[in-house]
Amino acid sequence: MRMVDLIEKKRDGQLLSKEEIDFIITEYTKGTIPDYQMSALLMAIYFTDMTDEEITNLTLAMAHSGEVIDLSSIDGIKVDKHSTGGVGDTTTLVLAPLVASVGVPVAKMSGRGLGFTGGTLDKLEAIPGFKIELTDEEFIRVVNESKVAVIGQSGDLAPADKKLYALRDVTATVSSIPLIASSIMSKKIAAGADAIVLDVTTGDGAFMKDIKDARRLAHTMVRIGKLANRQVMAVVSDMSQPLGEAIGNSLEVVEAIETLQGNGPEDLVEMCYALGSQMVVLAKQAQTLEEAREMLAEALSSGKALAKFKEMIKNQGGDETIVDAPQRLLTAQYEIALPAKKSGVVTQLVANEIGIAAMLLGAGRKTKEDEIDYAVGLKLHKKVGDKVAKGESLLTIYSNTEDVTNVKELLYNNITIGENGSEPPLIHDIITE
Amino acid sequence: MRMVDLIEKKRDGQLLSKEEIDFIITEYTKGTIPDYQMSALLMAIYFTDMTDEEITNLTLAMAHSGEVIDLSSIDGIKVDKHSTGGVGDTTTLVLAPLVASVGVPVAKMSGRGLGFTGGTLDKLEAIPGFKIELTDEEFIRVVNESKVAVIGQSGDLAPADKKLYALRDVTATVSSIPLIASSIMSKKIAAGADAIVLDVTTGDGAFMKDIKDARRLAHTMVRIGKLANRQVMAVVSDMSQPLGEAIGNSLEVVEAIETLQGNGPEDLVEMCYALGSQMVVLAKQAQTLEEAREMLAEALSSGKALAKFKEMIKNQGGDETIVDAPQRLLTAQYEIALPAKKSGVVTQLVANEIGIAAMLLGAGRKTKEDEIDYAVGLKLHKKVGDKVAKGESLLTIYSNTEDVTNVKELLYNNITIGENGSEPPLIHDIITE
Repeated sequence: MRMVDLIEKKRDGQLLSKEEIDFIITEYTKGTIPDYQMSALLMAIYFTDMTDEEITNLTLAMAHSGEVIDLSSIDGIKVDKHSTGGVGDTTTLVLAPLVASVGVPVAKMSGRGLGFTGGTLDKLEAIPGFKIELTDEEFIRVVNESKVAVIGQSGDLAPADKKLYALRDVTATVSSIPLIASSIMSKKIAAGADAIVLDVTTGDGAFMKDIKDARRLAHTMVRIGKLANRQVMAVVSDMSQPLGEAIGNSLEVVEAIETLQGNGPEDLVEMCYALGSQMVVLAKQAQTLEEAREMLAEALSSGKALAKFKEMIKNQGGDETIVDAPQRLLTAQYEIALPAKKSGVVTQLVANEIGIAAMLLGAGRKTKEDEIDYAVGLKLHKKVGDKVAKGESLLTIYSNTEDVTNVKELLYNNITIGENGSEPPLIHDIITE
Repeated sequence: MRMVDLIEKKRDGQLLSKEEIDFIITEYTKGTIPDYQMSALLMAIYFTDMTDEEITNLTLAMAHSGEVIDLSSIDGIKVDKHSTGGVGDTTTLVLAPLVASVGVPVAKMSGRGLGFTGGTLDKLEAIPGFKIELTDEEFIRVVNESKVAVIGQSGDLAPADKKLYALRDVTATVSSIPLIASSIMSKKIAAGADAIVLDVTTGDGAFMKDIKDARRLAHTMVRIGKLANRQVMAVVSDMSQPLGEAIGNSLEVVEAIETLQGNGPEDLVEMCYALGSQMVVLAKQAQTLEEAREMLAEALSSGKALAKFKEMIKNQGGDETIVDAPQRLLTAQYEIALPAKKSGVVTQLVANEIGIAAMLLGAGRKTKEDEIDYAVGLKLHKKVGDKVAKGESLLTIYSNTEDVTNVKELLYNNITIGENGSEPPLIHDIITE
């Protein structure tokens, strides 16, 4: 088999067989296929697309390019959750303890963020002492005992994907649905999940700006999950404005705690119910979504979910007392209001630009080397559809620098106040096939 | 400027500016743009194409990536000729002395072949003593004195093209019309030609199998030549069967001598008239194609053209006496006939496969390291449209190995004898814009 012939085949829109895809991924991971051939193939895939069967074979080849976690010694159906990302997305912090508290085992490997704010791991590290590194044995023991652990992705998990992603990033081949789908699904499969709930975000603050692309990505991942013998469903959710109210690492931990206390922002709570009830049903802890939702509501109101979060923090070496005094995490030197310049209704909160404002404060990384300032970020007081009076604060800026002129300007330019406006739909679609 | 943004731009079908193309070629030649980004760009170009203006800018950037030969100290309009290649293509060997003999200066840089038989340089080296290396000064002096020299391409001529071609070869991006056109034209422009006659071959034995692609390539090269202020015209010629009768290095030198003696195969002679008369007109040595054709015919019949070939061989250190006794070059140990298995009319001589048969005998190189056997090859006695009687020899195999069973089998499989057949048209189109 010669790589140049396989590139030509794909270029001409022909199908690659399982053997051919396995050859490509194995040899590329070993380094015997050079980057310059792989990038030509990636661009050919960008243009000619792949069938579900090809994407499944690509996904499985990448999943098996390194360690595949064996979670079989954990009782029950292990359900993983993945979001394609957004601004102020605190759902994992809430969902992990919430669904664990109703009996769903959550053995989650998570990633760091490169963008507006940190990823789930960065947010967890905003909790003093929290360790995101456990050995495989500790990880399995903790999940068996406590039903929940969230740790960093092992270095050898889907190394083909890691190498491919770095190449895609510099060759303008990131935004290809077969490549996105296989990248996400290969990591989930290598991480050992039996079932997967996907949150495919769409809108300005999401990777998929266009809802048609988001739907296609969601359908593709659900179908390849099934071909790979995993139970998979996807929610296509709105990310035209930030989710919840907090944007920033410590701020989002505080928001997660408030949500687990039953005082979360309406949209974040609803998203946690929507995704969580799917997870509970996939884990066969409930027969119907309604039943699952009731179980989750009870876990929130009874304090079971919050207690589970405390237990999770303690298990992973963190200071669990912050759950009872979350405000201790908010150590930014300056809290600066952003008063509305006129009265009206908020009609737009451009998620992407608001995320950039948080990043400018230090909440996120522009490059891998950047250090995150956990304390800084934004807390929204108004969301799209809310009325606001002139002079009323639209949001609070948490900053460690006094001069936030540029951040304020960026925010003002991306918050529109008009005459009429209504809350956008939170969930566009539930996709199960 | 970031290469990844330029790849994305081209991927999305946008135009690259002259500055952007210059940046890409300059930095790639220096090695600051890596192969993996360039191959992604090449594949994007394969799919999204380029405008004539973009191709012209690419051509000029590649032409200026290294040495640009200055032929201004040679009197007259320097006309170069380029063929996109075929099987048994002896035209350059005939044309160089032929048009030089009527006053057109021929300062030609030529290439080696990788394929069925050698390139023009290899064929010339089949002449004992022939040197294909001259310094720039010698080259210009010889052309000024004798009107003709054919030498090897300088190592630093269009280095960007050399590097790009090697990359295209292993990334399935060879067959892209903008990339083919810019590759050919950049070398011709760097080699200092004022005017260029292109022979774009089409059919089974050509690079462009499809006549539509050949026409598009021809039009593209003519238009970019004009945008680059060169006079350019193209002939789209047939390469469904081999051109002339000889396939193999010494055999083709002998055929060139016979043609210059006025005894050439009809199709080769006609091709030389067609291309040569265009060269003479472009060089302003004749007003019309008819006048040019008469001058060429006179040069053949008077022996002027043959004398010029003798002079060219002598100037470049070769044994010019072979012109008077060309059969001395035919030193293959075995001359083996291929008798027709039935009577009829030759309806097909599959050029590509017949070329491979010659390569199997040792006439061409499969890899750069292979050595050519000048003596071996094929001499066709029948062409498409010719009648043949059962047992009559279709061709002679010149071989240095006695057992040619596999070559014979390949030849029989690719020569069809039927009821009716006629000579294919030799020239499909003359393209001047």
